[in-house]
Amino acid sequence: MTELPLYRTGIDPGWIDYNGHLRDAYYGLIVSYAVDEVMDHLGLDAAYRQRTGCTLYTLELHIHYLHEVKSTDEIAVQTTILDFDRKRLHAGCRFTCSRLNDPAATVDMMLLHVHQGATPASAAFPADVAAKLEVLKASATSRDVFGPASRKIELKRR
Amino acid sequence: MTELPLYRTGIDPGWIDYNGHLRDAYYGLIVSYAVDEVMDHLGLDAAYRQRTGCTLYTLELHIHYLHEVKSTDEIAVQTTILDFDRKRLHAGCRFTCSRLNDPAATVDMMLLHVHQGATPASAAFPADVAAKLEVLKASATSRDVFGPASRKIELKRR
Repeated sequence: MTELPLYRTGIDPGWIDYNGHLRDAYYGLIVSYAVDEVMDHLGLDAAYRQRTGCTLYTLELHIHYLHEVKSTDEIAVQTTILDFDRKRLHAGCRFTCSRLNDPAATVDMMLLHVHQGATPASAAFPADVAAKLEVLKASATSRDVFGPASRKIELKRR
Repeated sequence: MTELPLYRTGIDPGWIDYNGHLRDAYYGLIVSYAVDEVMDHLGLDAAYRQRTGCTLYTLELHIHYLHEVKSTDEIAVQTTILDFDRKRLHAGCRFTCSRLNDPAATVDMMLLHVHQGATPASAAFPADVAAKLEVLKASATSRDVFGPASRKIELKRR
């Protein structure tokens, strides 16, 4: 496995807002479901969570909204392992759609491997998961072609 | 009006994920609903949108997840007008909850005033909306006490 599989989804009619397009928050829900699939592929699936009490928590998330998404669109999400360390995972997602020539959105996020319990605490990834992350990171599309990445949001006077 | 009213919400049971806490994406949905209320207060409400064909689009969104939110929590969202120009609005949201001493999350986002139509195009805020934004910005809590703000997400080796 050198690349994560695409996550594909249609658009639930309830996700369309008064502007007639996908409500901003539901880009985030699509990312969240895509990350669930990534967890399954990494071996951080429901059985792992049950057995170890460990899971991933989201620390930070940044979305660039590049195009409107309509109710008839089907979205494909490519997740890329941008970086990781003992406990943290920096992942990027790019949303594409056959109607558009370039991405509908790009997302990057920081995730933390956590042991849940009375007091959740960060925990190192198991060796087999770290090995998978290493292969995925090595084959990752470079940041330069991933699309706009997280940054400080501010108005620059023109 | 020198400060925007708090947006308050309970937690829908369907928003809780397999980790037993508020799924990351639903922090974004709460922000989205809070911004809808802000639009009503600014005069960018449904009647305005119907009359002018103008609305707000989200360009960028960054969430810092600072504490888990549980199904029994009630969240209050304070939105702050951090900055604005002719067409764009930089807003921040802080999530608080009576169970916690400090914010559960901070969010900042860039919004664009858009005239919808065959091809949506950015449009200047009407003068009365700009005047309200000026008052709100002048009275805004400073960035320093707002909480963590958007930034480049990256792993810094320790």
